[in-house]
Amino acid sequence: MRAHGRQADQLRPISLEPGFSKHAEGSCFVRFGDTHVLCTASIDEKVPSWLRGQGRGWVTAEYGMLPRATHSRNDREAAKGKQTGRTQEIQRLIGRALRAAIDLEKLGEVSIKIDCDVIQADGGTRTASVTGAYVALYQAIEGLMNKGTLKENPIRTEVAAVSCGIVKGEALLDLDYTEDSSAGADANFVLTGTGQIVEIQGTAEGAPFSAEEFANLFALAQGGIARLTAYQRTALGLF
Amino acid sequence: MRAHGRQADQLRPISLEPGFSKHAEGSCFVRFGDTHVLCTASIDEKVPSWLRGQGRGWVTAEYGMLPRATHSRNDREAAKGKQTGRTQEIQRLIGRALRAAIDLEKLGEVSIKIDCDVIQADGGTRTASVTGAYVALYQAIEGLMNKGTLKENPIRTEVAAVSCGIVKGEALLDLDYTEDSSAGADANFVLTGTGQIVEIQGTAEGAPFSAEEFANLFALAQGGIARLTAYQRTALGLF
Amino acid sequence: MRAHGRQADQLRPISLEPGFSKHAEGSCFVRFGDTHVLCTASIDEKVPSWLRGQGRGWVTAEYGMLPRATHSRNDREAAKGKQTGRTQEIQRLIGRALRAAIDLEKLGEVSIKIDCDVIQADGGTRTASVTGAYVALYQAIEGLMNKGTLKENPIRTEVAAVSCGIVKGEALLDLDYTEDSSAGADANFVLTGTGQIVEIQGTAEGAPFSAEEFANLFALAQGGIARLTAYQRTALGLF
Amino acid sequence: MRAHGRQADQLRPISLEPGFSKHAEGSCFVRFGDTHVLCTASIDEKVPSWLRGQGRGWVTAEYGMLPRATHSRNDREAAKGKQTGRTQEIQRLIGRALRAAIDLEKLGEVSIKIDCDVIQADGGTRTASVTGAYVALYQAIEGLMNKGTLKENPIRTEVAAVSCGIVKGEALLDLDYTEDSSAGADANFVLTGTGQIVEIQGTAEGAPFSAEEFANLFALAQGGIARLTAYQRTALGLF
Amino acid sequence: MRAHGRQADQLRPISLEPGFSKHAEGSCFVRFGDTHVLCTASIDEKVPSWLRGQGRGWVTAEYGMLPRATHSRNDREAAKGKQTGRTQEIQRLIGRALRAAIDLEKLGEVSIKIDCDVIQADGGTRTASVTGAYVALYQAIEGLMNKGTLKENPIRTEVAAVSCGIVKGEALLDLDYTEDSSAGADANFVLTGTGQIVEIQGTAEGAPFSAEEFANLFALAQGGIARLTAYQRTALGLF
Amino acid sequence: MRAHGRQADQLRPISLEPGFSKHAEGSCFVRFGDTHVLCTASIDEKVPSWLRGQGRGWVTAEYGMLPRATHSRNDREAAKGKQTGRTQEIQRLIGRALRAAIDLEKLGEVSIKIDCDVIQADGGTRTASVTGAYVALYQAIEGLMNKGTLKENPIRTEVAAVSCGIVKGEALLDLDYTEDSSAGADANFVLTGTGQIVEIQGTAEGAPFSAEEFANLFALAQGGIARLTAYQRTALGLF
Repeated sequence: MRAHGRQADQLRPISLEPGFSKHAEGSCFVRFGDTHVLCTASIDEKVPSWLRGQGRGWVTAEYGMLPRATHSRNDREAAKGKQTGRTQEIQRLIGRALRAAIDLEKLGEVSIKIDCDVIQADGGTRTASVTGAYVALYQAIEGLMNKGTLKENPIRTEVAAVSCGIVKGEALLDLDYTEDSSAGADANFVLTGTGQIVEIQGTAEGAPFSAEEFANLFALAQGGIARLTAYQRTALGLF
Repeated sequence: MRAHGRQADQLRPISLEPGFSKHAEGSCFVRFGDTHVLCTASIDEKVPSWLRGQGRGWVTAEYGMLPRATHSRNDREAAKGKQTGRTQEIQRLIGRALRAAIDLEKLGEVSIKIDCDVIQADGGTRTASVTGAYVALYQAIEGLMNKGTLKENPIRTEVAAVSCGIVKGEALLDLDYTEDSSAGADANFVLTGTGQIVEIQGTAEGAPFSAEEFANLFALAQGGIARLTAYQRTALGLF
Repeated sequence: MRAHGRQADQLRPISLEPGFSKHAEGSCFVRFGDTHVLCTASIDEKVPSWLRGQGRGWVTAEYGMLPRATHSRNDREAAKGKQTGRTQEIQRLIGRALRAAIDLEKLGEVSIKIDCDVIQADGGTRTASVTGAYVALYQAIEGLMNKGTLKENPIRTEVAAVSCGIVKGEALLDLDYTEDSSAGADANFVLTGTGQIVEIQGTAEGAPFSAEEFANLFALAQGGIARLTAYQRTALGLF
Repeated sequence: MRAHGRQADQLRPISLEPGFSKHAEGSCFVRFGDTHVLCTASIDEKVPSWLRGQGRGWVTAEYGMLPRATHSRNDREAAKGKQTGRTQEIQRLIGRALRAAIDLEKLGEVSIKIDCDVIQADGGTRTASVTGAYVALYQAIEGLMNKGTLKENPIRTEVAAVSCGIVKGEALLDLDYTEDSSAGADANFVLTGTGQIVEIQGTAEGAPFSAEEFANLFALAQGGIARLTAYQRTALGLF
Repeated sequence: MRAHGRQADQLRPISLEPGFSKHAEGSCFVRFGDTHVLCTASIDEKVPSWLRGQGRGWVTAEYGMLPRATHSRNDREAAKGKQTGRTQEIQRLIGRALRAAIDLEKLGEVSIKIDCDVIQADGGTRTASVTGAYVALYQAIEGLMNKGTLKENPIRTEVAAVSCGIVKGEALLDLDYTEDSSAGADANFVLTGTGQIVEIQGTAEGAPFSAEEFANLFALAQGGIARLTAYQRTALGLF
Repeated sequence: MRAHGRQADQLRPISLEPGFSKHAEGSCFVRFGDTHVLCTASIDEKVPSWLRGQGRGWVTAEYGMLPRATHSRNDREAAKGKQTGRTQEIQRLIGRALRAAIDLEKLGEVSIKIDCDVIQADGGTRTASVTGAYVALYQAIEGLMNKGTLKENPIRTEVAAVSCGIVKGEALLDLDYTEDSSAGADANFVLTGTGQIVEIQGTAEGAPFSAEEFANLFALAQGGIARLTAYQRTALGLF
């Protein structure tokens, strides 16, 4: 039995609040149950030097976690003077997922930096981050369209993300921290609203798993992401 | 005329939410107008090695700001690999203020780390941090009392903080970002509820200022801090 | 037409030289075509402090690339003072893959550090690293068995890795640098000799891809890894 | 009774040697008793990039302490790879104090960097630094006037600094290390020669202190700084 | 008796393989017995900013050692985030030696970076590095001549390096690790093919040594380097 | 003609002030002409962990230069967050030279750290550092003898250092900055009072030089160091 009587294929309570930040060009406060992430999109009307003069834009992400977002306190990365490998892995994933969602040619020489900061963690911070980051990015793009900076919408697909895992032999959608800690296999899916693959990361925590088990996780993810995409659209007033 | 018709001696709308964090032993989400800071207190039932075996505790603070808490984005300190001088100066101030509030002998060999993370900034982040940090610390201490770890309450005084400044010749309480940017002199006061001095930092941004002007700022701060202390007591259910 | 007339489901010329290093407890110089990696296994008969006293071992990996392993020179990470996110992502992948291959309880309180250093790069450095690292690890374990430090073999499965990708609409096995640069989708598979999943990382470089396309990549990987496992066995003298 | 029979309102023996350095554009070796600081001013005839083209100059400071300037050796900051929070706090204070003394518009697009290096420490290193740094800065400005680079003198006020504290209930001027270690309250004042406030930092080391006590410290500082300013003028040959 | 029956004035088996690297403009895999170093030369057709516009080129070197090149594993410098003093000392030596070999005016505004990476270490890594680096540099220069970028050959002298030491009272050429560990005095010589001095570093590991002993070491080095230079010429096809 | 009419074999004016520092166990302010270095010796009555329990002591050195010790200002290493290769090379040299002077067995489990901080630079900072460091070390050892911590004097030889170089074809002793900048060859010698070799570093800045030229430099150094050793003895009151 999952916490709060959740079914195997059920998401945690989801909430997406666009426009949470007073200052950012786009923002979204996203909750997947007790996992809470603030995503902001900051526009810079120039690109990194290695991209200059090519007429293309750039989207990148940074990820962080408040020291006491977790059960016990983690050292502050700024105080230690470096980001962990986990942090870097996650922010690279978020950046790739968002770049897959956008046509960088159509964006023109504009950079958008997405910051995903975990205020509270209970499993699935990277998937909540991708899901909220898309909303923040959309809002920032919308602002560029409204200002006339962009003539054509560069977004080519919606993206959202969810984790799935095999816990005590059962495939479960959207693991919380307790489930994640005891999962034998664990996969993060970034998919489009129609279930196409943007990014997959799957890991056997214990014994290797089979292609069939993987297919079960993938099917759960497709269902979950269809619903997450609907939440994104609702939050953005697109229905 | 100040924003929202504020008087010179008036605080911005203040809100203190203790228990904001699911995981921390103490926490407070503090708002001074549009300045929002999450303060958490994390207890570690041992002390740093240089203090071991002396029967005394330790309280320290760390401060951070989300990259897009401000009007334009600041580089992430964790990504740059070091904390700015400003960050270090602020976290040292918060730590000293809290240590002045507590009898470290009575705390025993326990460390409490306060994290103050600015979610949104509009001036006065260090004073909001001190004010909220006191509430988080109080909550953590209360937990230790309830658990029986502490027999005697080590808190010896309430502390709160506020900034004051001289803007176009007028002494104002609790500056927002716009006021702060045009202040000729600027002072941060950490006082007890009865107006005793815990810490003062005053700086002439332009021309030096007189002892009389400083006295005016101090009087404003005493009035403001009496009210902040009342907010703290209310938030902690002490009335 | 692929370079050297390779078929879509064909590996590059593979070579695995165990015992390459004079000093290391295990080692393997692995070549996937023009990608050359030196893998060494170093045994430390104690475990990190967080694991002490639990009777379990630890296996971890580090990855590096000589500055001129690539077409144009990359800055030396030691000189820049930090490892890139890419490096950290790869070494975390290698470590997870090897830990999945081994029963850490049976290893006892022993640490094994695998170093994978890319001497020359032409695509697929992380998959060559995993494949060679397994051989180096096996050799180190064999040494511990021969010395009598280990009574029971802790290896529970063979692992090897290969990349696959969709290049101009066609699914290809074991991409070289040129193919990798033009792939629309790209996946790295770490599988057991019997095709079970240890780790999957798949990314749409351009348009999202379908579950069917993913299945094609997976099938190619299963074939390739069956052959890589055979190369590993041969190199280790297990046939 | 203070060391060497000093009265409560008496400075330690003060010595200011301008022109101490063979290479620097301005310099001063300052002694407050056994506290010895070498202050140098280095002119760079350009400004940081964020200030370029605005016709304004910049003055900034760096602070350091030789490892064995103190009773027991401190680790070398260059070897540890970072400056402590204390160092950063002090150098920010020195920089603000000097910028308050100078009209940056009149300085034009010139940067002056002041280095304050503590050769021997016995309390009050930051106040000795500010006092000596003003002399070094003055000398550098004088050189620019003599060369004709500057037409008009940009110095708008003299500044000097001193510490005061409450030791065993008594307010004392210019604390040495022993006094500082036992002070219940401690304040550093940067004032002009006429007693106007440039910067104040006051801290309760133990119990909070009252506005009256603060006023006593301030009065001591005004007297001390009037004398320090006289020493500065004498050293600069302005009498 | 030395290992493998070597005479006091005999080099270890030497091997120099130019063109080892697929990508680099020049390269040499050098073996002094069990000490193996990969040297690559990377050309950048511009110079560092401090040298721009002077018509002169620049040659510099970096040195690294794989973590398990040695008997027991050393921490990876990239992971620790800094290069040791030993590494920096060695790479500065290699750079100086190569710059002495080349007329930087004739090189024109071109930079050549030599990377020396120790794959396996058994004493004498810095002298093997200099000897192999010269070959890699020569090859890179030859390429620039062949392309017509250079009209005139900027190489003004051959350089090679060897270590000598006093072991149990006897002067020995080209120390291996075991000999080096027990040497009472130890010197590294970088000489031209005709025995002129490019660089000398001599150190008494135990008791100071005399000018006569030094002269003996120097004589051994002259003999050894004449032979190393012959190996270099042969490897470069210059005989 | 050298500055101040110096002969080729003449030292600059030398001054050695032992006991310069109020706090250090040993100290010496050394002047070689306009090159001024403060050397302090700090005793720690324990050894680094890798040396514990062996009954042997340790002597090590750190070197630094005030930012404006030189003609134009250098960045502060503590602010940049790392020591340059030059700094590390020099401090390693000083440490080796001092360890050669002392019997670490006789020192017992005691560490002595020598700090050499250049207050003003005019060439030869490393040789002045070694020469002054020996005096500071001697003083610290003398203190341990007087306290009875040491029964037997562990100093086995005097050491001093000087630079020599070939300037416009002439061999000169003790180069100042101007001479050093135009030297074709440059060597630093650390010798005992009787002219035995502790350390030699020689470099051809331009064309390689001959063994005869090297012998001339060595002879100059022997003469200079005999005189430096006499200065050391006088300063230590040993005549």
